[in-house]
Parts: sequence; C-alpha cells; structure tokens
Amino acid sequence: MFRTHTCGDLRIQDVNNKVTLSGWVQTIRKFGSITFVDLRDRYGITQLLFSESLNEKLEANPLGREFVLQVTGTVNERSNKNNNIPTGEIELLVNEFSILNKSMTPPFTIQDDTDGGDDLRMKYRFLDLRRNAVKKNLELRYAVGRSTRNYLHEQNFMDIETPFLIKSTPEGARDFVVPSRMNPGQFYALPQSPQTFKQLLMVSGYDRYYQIVKCFRDEDLRADRQPEFTQIDCEMAFVEQEDILNMFENLIKRIFKDVKNIDYSEAVNRMTWENAMWTYGNDKPDIRFDMKLCNLKFPSHTFPNQTDISSLINGVDFKVFDEAETVVAIAAPGCCEYTRKQTDELTEWVKRPQIGMKGMVFIKCNLDGTFKSSVDKFYSEEKLKAIAEATHAKAGDLVLILAGSEERTRKATSELRLYLGQQLGLRKADEFKLLWVLDFPLFEYAEEDNRWVARHHPFTSPKPSDIATMINNNPAIENAAEYLKHPYANIKANAYDMVLNGNEIGGGSIRIFQKELQQKMFAALGMDEHEQQHKFGFLLGAFEYGAPPHGGIAFGFDRLCSILGGSESIRDFIAFPKNNSGRDVMIDAPSSIDDKQFNELQIKLDLKA
Amino acid sequence: MFRTHTCGDLRIQDVNNKVTLSGWVQTIRKFGSITFVDLRDRYGITQLLFSESLNEKLEANPLGREFVLQVTGTVNERSNKNNNIPTGEIELLVNEFSILNKSMTPPFTIQDDTDGGDDLRMKYRFLDLRRNAVKKNLELRYAVGRSTRNYLHEQNFMDIETPFLIKSTPEGARDFVVPSRMNPGQFYALPQSPQTFKQLLMVSGYDRYYQIVKCFRDEDLRADRQPEFTQIDCEMAFVEQEDILNMFENLIKRIFKDVKNIDYSEAVNRMTWENAMWTYGNDKPDIRFDMKLCNLKFPSHTFPNQTDISSLINGVDFKVFDEAETVVAIAAPGCCEYTRKQTDELTEWVKRPQIGMKGMVFIKCNLDGTFKSSVDKFYSEEKLKAIAEATHAKAGDLVLILAGSEERTRKATSELRLYLGQQLGLRKADEFKLLWVLDFPLFEYAEEDNRWVARHHPFTSPKPSDIATMINNNPAIENAAEYLKHPYANIKANAYDMVLNGNEIGGGSIRIFQKELQQKMFAALGMDEHEQQHKFGFLLGAFEYGAPPHGGIAFGFDRLCSILGGSESIRDFIAFPKNNSGRDVMIDAPSSIDDKQFNELQIKLDLKA
Repeated sequence: MFRTHTCGDLRIQDVNNKVTLSGWVQTIRKFGSITFVDLRDRYGITQLLFSESLNEKLEANPLGREFVLQVTGTVNERSNKNNNIPTGEIELLVNEFSILNKSMTPPFTIQDDTDGGDDLRMKYRFLDLRRNAVKKNLELRYAVGRSTRNYLHEQNFMDIETPFLIKSTPEGARDFVVPSRMNPGQFYALPQSPQTFKQLLMVSGYDRYYQIVKCFRDEDLRADRQPEFTQIDCEMAFVEQEDILNMFENLIKRIFKDVKNIDYSEAVNRMTWENAMWTYGNDKPDIRFDMKLCNLKFPSHTFPNQTDISSLINGVDFKVFDEAETVVAIAAPGCCEYTRKQTDELTEWVKRPQIGMKGMVFIKCNLDGTFKSSVDKFYSEEKLKAIAEATHAKAGDLVLILAGSEERTRKATSELRLYLGQQLGLRKADEFKLLWVLDFPLFEYAEEDNRWVARHHPFTSPKPSDIATMINNNPAIENAAEYLKHPYANIKANAYDMVLNGNEIGGGSIRIFQKELQQKMFAALGMDEHEQQHKFGFLLGAFEYGAPPHGGIAFGFDRLCSILGGSESIRDFIAFPKNNSGRDVMIDAPSSIDDKQFNELQIKLDLKA
Repeated sequence: MFRTHTCGDLRIQDVNNKVTLSGWVQTIRKFGSITFVDLRDRYGITQLLFSESLNEKLEANPLGREFVLQVTGTVNERSNKNNNIPTGEIELLVNEFSILNKSMTPPFTIQDDTDGGDDLRMKYRFLDLRRNAVKKNLELRYAVGRSTRNYLHEQNFMDIETPFLIKSTPEGARDFVVPSRMNPGQFYALPQSPQTFKQLLMVSGYDRYYQIVKCFRDEDLRADRQPEFTQIDCEMAFVEQEDILNMFENLIKRIFKDVKNIDYSEAVNRMTWENAMWTYGNDKPDIRFDMKLCNLKFPSHTFPNQTDISSLINGVDFKVFDEAETVVAIAAPGCCEYTRKQTDELTEWVKRPQIGMKGMVFIKCNLDGTFKSSVDKFYSEEKLKAIAEATHAKAGDLVLILAGSEERTRKATSELRLYLGQQLGLRKADEFKLLWVLDFPLFEYAEEDNRWVARHHPFTSPKPSDIATMINNNPAIENAAEYLKHPYANIKANAYDMVLNGNEIGGGSIRIFQKELQQKMFAALGMDEHEQQHKFGFLLGAFEYGAPPHGGIAFGFDRLCSILGGSESIRDFIAFPKNNSGRDVMIDAPSSIDDKQFNELQIKLDLKA
C-alpha cells in the first residue's frame, strides 16, 4: 500500500498514530542536523521531519524538489503551528522513506505565483497543472458540471450521447472534416453542436435532453477561442419560451449555490435586444453598473420604438453633431474634476484604431451647479444643462459624447462605458448579475451575398406573430441599399441569450417544427431545394412524422467556468488547451502523418505555394 | 402551456380534475359515436375519450397515427380498467383538442414488436427511437452513466476532459485524422483513448481521474463494432493492482444495485490468463456454467505449469490423436442419449469454416454405467471410462473430444462449450457472473514483422519480478521459429480484464512510470529513439519530473449497457449508431465536401482506380 492517508488528512487527533504518506516534495529546509520537507498531493501539504538518524540515508539518497516520496512515520504535534493550512498543527516524524521517482529541476516553480511564462507553462502543462491555482480551476469546473448534472437529473432530463462523426453542413463557421477510409472520397464532419440531433431526439419523444459535450469549430482563433470547446447542451419539447427561461435561470442559480454558495434569489432581469442596444450599445450588457447610454441622435429605422430628443443638440450649427448619424452620451460618475491630461487620455483611448472614433466632447457638471464644456462656443450653459440632465448626470459627473456612424459610435460608446466602469471600480469581481436578452432580429443582412443570414441559426423560429410575414413574402432583396425596408428586416426571433456580467454565457431559441416554415427559412438563406435536401433532408423528413413544438439552449461551459472562477481566460479552465494557432505545444499536434495513412485514406496534400 | 401533466402521470386520485396533455397518437378506436385515442409520450400512455359532441370537429380535423395532439379535458374513472399500465384506472374525457403537428403514416409500427427491418429502422432512427424497447435501452444507458458518476464522485474521482484533437501515433488500430487548416500539411488525430493524457494527469497529481468519453478507431467494422464508441475511462495514482481491482469491482457491483437492483455480494472470481486458457480455452470465459475443458494433450511450452495426462489417450495407435498437437474434451451434461442425427449435427457444427475442425469424437456415458464411443475400436471401455472421468463426466453425459493444432482446437472447444451452454440453457439471461482475468503475457509475437507487440498497450508495466528480465535482455528475436524460447515470451503483465458473462467489459493495467523502462518497452516494440521522441516525447519528458506509480482501467460503456440490458447488440444502446460500413444512413454521412473546403484544407483526393 502506498499510503494510509493523503497529505491533506492528518489533524491533531492523529498524534501518535503511525501513518504512511506519498506525494511530491514541495520544499526542503535544513536546520542543523534535522530536515523539514513539505510533502504535497492533491489534497494538501503535510510537514515531514527527518531527524538526525536519517541523515546518512538522506545523504545517500538526496531529495530534490518534485521528487515522489513515500514516507512512514509517527504523527507529532508541532511546536510551531501553522494556522494557514488544515494540517498545520501536526508534522510527521519520519521513520522510513523511499524515493518512488526522481525529478529534474522543474523549468518553473510549482507555486501560485509561478515564474513560468505562458509558453513554458503550456509546453510543460503537466507541471503547470500541479499548481494550486490551476487545480482550483479544474475543481471548480468539475463542481459546475456535477451541479449541472444533478439539477438536470432532478428535472427529468436525460443525458443522451449524439454522434461525433457526422455530416458536413457548413453554415457560418467552418467544419473540421475527417476523411473516411471505408468510404473513399467522402468525409465526416465533427459537430459544431449537436443541434439537429437534439431536435431529432425531440421528434423521438425524449422531451428533456442534455449533454455536456465537446463541439468543434474551425475558425481563425481570436484570443480566448478554442477549436474544441464544451457546451452544456439542452433541449425540451412541449415548451414555450417562458418555460425555458424559468428552467435554465434556475440551473444557473443552482450552480451559484452549489459552487459559490451564493443565494441568487432575485428575479433575473430581462431586456429586449432593442433596449439592450439602445441603453447599453451592446447585446450582452454588463448590468452590474448603470452609466446608461443617452441617445441624442439615432437612425429611426433601427430603433422604431424610441423617443427622439435630438432637439437638445440641434440648431446650433455644430457640424460634428449635425453631420453624424448617431450621437450618444454617457455620464461618468464623479469625474467632473478630471484634468486636461485625463480627458486627453480618454480622447486618445476612443481614437485608437480598435475603437475608431474621431474625438470626444466633454461636459463637466461642476459641484457648484455650473457646466463647462469643450463645445461652449456652440452650446449655452442652459443647453449643456439640458443635455447633462438627459444623461441623468449629477453634479460632479463628467458627460462624454461620441458622434459618428451608427454601428461604430454605438459600439464605441459601449466599449467606453465598460472601460470607465472598470477604471471606476464599478465592475466588482465578486458580484454576479444575470440578464436575459430577448426578441433578437431573426435575420441579419449579408452584404457580400445580398441575402439574409440567420442571426442565431437556421432552426430558430420567428415570433408567432411574424410567421405570416415570413411565409407570405419573397425573401429576395431587390434593392440592397434599402434592405432595411424589406419585411424580413423586422421579423423577431423566439430567441434568448443569457448574459452574466457582460458575457454571453448561453443562448437558444424556440425551434421551427413545421416542415413548410423550415423550408421557407432555408430558402430565405439562399438554399435551393436540392441543397436543402442534401444537407438537411433527414430533418425535413423527421418533421413529416409528428414533430412536437420544442426549444432549447446551450451554455458555453468553458466560459461559464472562467467567469465563476473570476478569470478572463477560458484557457485557465481547460486541462489541455490549444494556443492561438490551434496547436497543442505539449504533445506537438497537429503533426505530419505517414504515407501509409495518406494511401489508405486516398487523399494527398495540395499545398499552396 | 402545452401540458399540465405527462401521459404517465394521471391516477384515480386525479378524477374530476381538469388537465391538459400533449403527446403522440398511438392508436385510434371508434365505437359508434365515440372515439378512443391512446396518447403517448416519454412517460406513458393515457386513454382519451372523444364523445359525440366532438365528432364534427374530428371530421374536420381527422386524427392519424403519430399525430402530435394537445388535449384538455376532465379525468374520468374508467369502466373498463387496464391493469397493465399505471394510468389504466382513468381516462381523459376530452373537451378541447388541437393538432400540434400532423404525421405521415410511419414506415413501420411504433411498437415493441415492430414490423420494420433493420435498414428501415436505421434510416428512420428518429421513429425507431420512439419505440418503448429502444427507449428502455437509452434509459438504462443513462442510469448506468449516472450510477458510475455517483460512485466515482463519492470515491473522490474528478471528471477531467481531455482533448479530442490530438496527435496521430498509430499503434495497433488506425487513427481517424483531421486536416488542420491553420497548419497546412499537418493533421490532428481523434483519440483511440485518452491513455497518455490520463497518465499525464497522474503526473500532475490528480490521483483519481475519470471520464465517460467518446473514443475513435478506424478499423474494418466487424458486426457490432462502431467507429466511435464510449469508454468509462479511469486512472489512479499511488495504487497497486489490488487497489484497482477492489475499486472497480465495487463500481460494477454498485451499477448492478442501482440499475438492476441486484445485490452482488459475493466475491468476484479471479483467474490467471493461463488458467482461463487451460480451463475454458478463452481469455474471457463465461463462468455462469461449468463444462470445463479437459486437456488430454497440449503443447507444454504454452502451459508450463499444467499436468500432462496424455497417457490416457496414448499408446493405442489412434492417429488422429497421436498426430494432433492438442486434444481437448468437454462433457455435455445429460446428453448421452443424443441421436445419431444430433451428434452428426454437432460434428457438422465444428466442421464449419468458422470453427474449422476436421471431426469430433464422442463418448456416451450411459446411465447404466457403460461407455460407448465412436472410437471403440481404439479404446477399451476401461480407457473410455478413464477419459470420461478426467472430464468429470457423470453417468448420462456426453463427452466430446476435439483434436488438432493448439490455437484452433482450443478456440473450437471454447466455441463448442459456449454453443452447448446456450443450447442446454446454461447461460441464463438473468444471471450475472463477474470474473477478473489476471497475469496476461506482456508481449505477443508479430510474425509478419518478427518482433514483439504489446498485448495490452505500450504503457502496461511488467510484473515487478519480470522488470530485470525485460531490462537485461535484448528484445531482438534471432530465430523466429523459436520465439517462445526468448525470455520476453514469459514476461507477465500487471494487467487485468474484467469479464461479465463471457464478455470483456473492461481492461487495464498498472502502468510503467519510469522513463528507462518505458524506453525499453518502446524499443522492444521496434521504435527507434527518433520515433519514440516524435510520438511520445511528451510522455517520456513528463516521466522525468516526478511521475508517481499509477494504473487504471477502461470499461466499454456501450458493451456494458448491452449486457445489462440483455442484448447481444451494442447498436440497440446507442441513440444514433453507424452501420457496418461506418455510415449513418439517417443523415447520409460520410458525404462529399465542397471545393472550398478542399482548397482551404490544402488537400485533394487521390482515389485509387
């Protein structure tokens, strides 16, 4: 037997017991003739005391950091107790030891604050995983998975495995493909999600399905994207949107409770997509803090239901505002005394290419009730006051105004809001705020092809009130410049995203379950009947045999874990992640394959110069 | 809301309640002016009663089999109760109904005994999955998974996800490969198992790991093999073989309890590989019944520890036995009165090409104590009696004797034993017998390459007592004909298989954790240093930084479920299986991909004529 206890087990009650431990040497400290060793395993650290009698053996078998050691001895009460660790009241007086395996000196220290850089840590990921900081992340991930499974089990969901070797039907992202040796010239695809299979399971009557499942997308990797990632994938039959929202906000609340011991008892906020864009400039707003957008000018076709207050800025012949499609203001609380240097820095920040604005207008709402602006020569103090009031600025705040084309300006204001929220300490790491964003547009316009694309995916249903609009209109866009006037532009989807602290953690929809509507959707996306049949014939076929109303959701498991763990990086929550080129630098994959494999698969390379 | 209850919920206590159900039309029966409909969902069947008042609406909206129906009505006590179903005491008197979706007539009936053949059921798998027989299988699969997760969680195991896009290191089976667009000319491989990753996790200190995980092997598919399959994959550090056997026989016992309500309290049998081959002719014996093999003649180098009783058959100049390498007998209980026709049929059975024997010798052990044989002219009744006694035959039994080359004869006897066990009703469907098979040979001889191959895999350790033999000998085989005299032929592995009712349900080993021994193993398998470094450099590297002793096991999840479900076919326990050509006939995959995909991946077809 290699051990009677783990390195996290022993307590003061165990004093005088004879025990055996196995683990890794964390530290070695010599004091004269005695040697202290901290022995580490997954469960903790126990201090070992090698007395003088073992010196000869220690000299013959010198220990080193990360050596694997087995020790037998007697539990002792420590004279110098360590209250920081659960085993800190005891130590093990070693009688016998044996080195189970040696270790070279690790290329970085196995500590929370390691001296290893990212590249080194990824190459030696098996050592990086020994660090407590990484272990805590994987433990959290396991806890989130376990909580999810328990909740969904209690709610009568069944875990049903869907296949990994499926058919390539690229819509949006690229598929990874797998050549089939037994079917030469043909390829499987790895699933981007189990979407169509979970819908088939609904047709089959398994009315509550889930899976925690790997998905694959061959996309150019931005920071913090992985070619393989994990989803909590769920689907329900005989449900409406309200059923789904209730079921899955309770899942997340359960995870909060099980994993973070947080009672999230308040109702989850809900917001339409239009209101999210209007109020936060963003379809995944961080609602931990206020600083809402004040729309001083906007394109009315994008926000048909909103109030026009452009009279506040019009009529003074200020060209920057007059010529802009969109003018948006936000109030930064308590910032009215920013120095010229500080406001210049903010201006530079919005002028960076990633943000892309030309400049920024400021209004200082002084504590004495006066207003001072960079555009004083256009706006009277009275007008400045009116604008500031529209932003809900209070005395002491600083109003920031951006102007330009709609999409860029709105995005820039949203980014500025998040940046200032961070700077001002308004995005608290230990606060969690959930939000449902609802009523997304069903379609987006794809300029390059002058056609519609599905904003969510081709299986999302329109709102019931929009079905007739969809069925009775020709999806073709005759005048590209006026695509917004096409009836399809206003169709809303039965879709919902769950947002946590400004991150989309999940999204889903009520699905189309009628063959004719699904065909109309495929046609709207530019798929002719032949292509529909080739790619999705099985689904259209299934809809002919009694498909029930159904809908579902998928959560990004890696992302959810990283937010709960308080980290920006999903990579810290994946045991063996890939880098931004899709490489696993530890095992050195992908790599070449041999001629026999090419021959058997009947493919060859066709490398471009 | 689509329903207030499921079709399995309602009981006599619900009488007079107003409820709403949704489900599928199972049957429609008209009696004069009233109509009975059985409405089905995942949870059960509820009888609906449409009274005369609904006839007009029913005529305008005729129902059909598998239509999706929503009904609201009042729960009624039935006059004609059905004790076969939990809802059989009530029916629903329908007030309102609406057809949620229509259905074409299904190509086969949605019943336990369906009229659909295998091909049709696979093409319309989404309808096949509606059948209760298939649903029960998937429910059992979910229950086995859940039981596994609960047990392993209680035992401190952590579910840690390992990557799917890894490196091609084919050893034995072929890898499925995935071209990397971002790394042109390079390929990922899909994992045949997470073997090396779980070993790295042990090096990282996660001493109890598990995963229920998809694995991939591109093999020519025999019946009941799938290119993608699921494993319960486990690994532990600081353990010896005994720890693993205890941990995982208790897992299977827990599954028996949770899923089948079977208390498997007896100790799990254990048998060495040599004894399994000697006694059952097979390394995965079905020990639900006896009929052990009696070895009348055998090659001594294969069974060095066994007793030679060939004197029983020698010295009578019976050429068939004299010239055979191996002579094996078994006693078929109670079969002494088999007719000539029956013994001829058995002889034909062993002469089939799949079995490949030339004939069979019979000894009838008559109830009156006399013996009668097809080889009376060679063997006296006394000799026949001695042979029969060696097989432990009793009066009334029939002794069957096969002779020929060792491998074929032993396999044939094993097959014959299983066949007779089936015929005689000795392999009871509701009886479950577990067995550990231990002490496998570490190496097998690969004739085509005149070298050793790993019987289990290259990471399995030799028995501690055999390590010196392995380290101190040159693995090269100088004389192919005498490979059995090479010291490597006798090295035993620290490996174990778990066998259930004659099926291998799991297997594993204590692993090599010392770099030098691992290198010796790779060298023995014919890998030079360059190849070792290219394929497994990361593992050899990890072993330099404090690798602990470790070992593990993997269970075939599909197979385990099928045996627990009493089926021969794993396909019945997989939601969306592939056929013997690796095709999913429902979605029609694999399939062609388009030119854009070839271009982006920088590969092209190279089809052989």
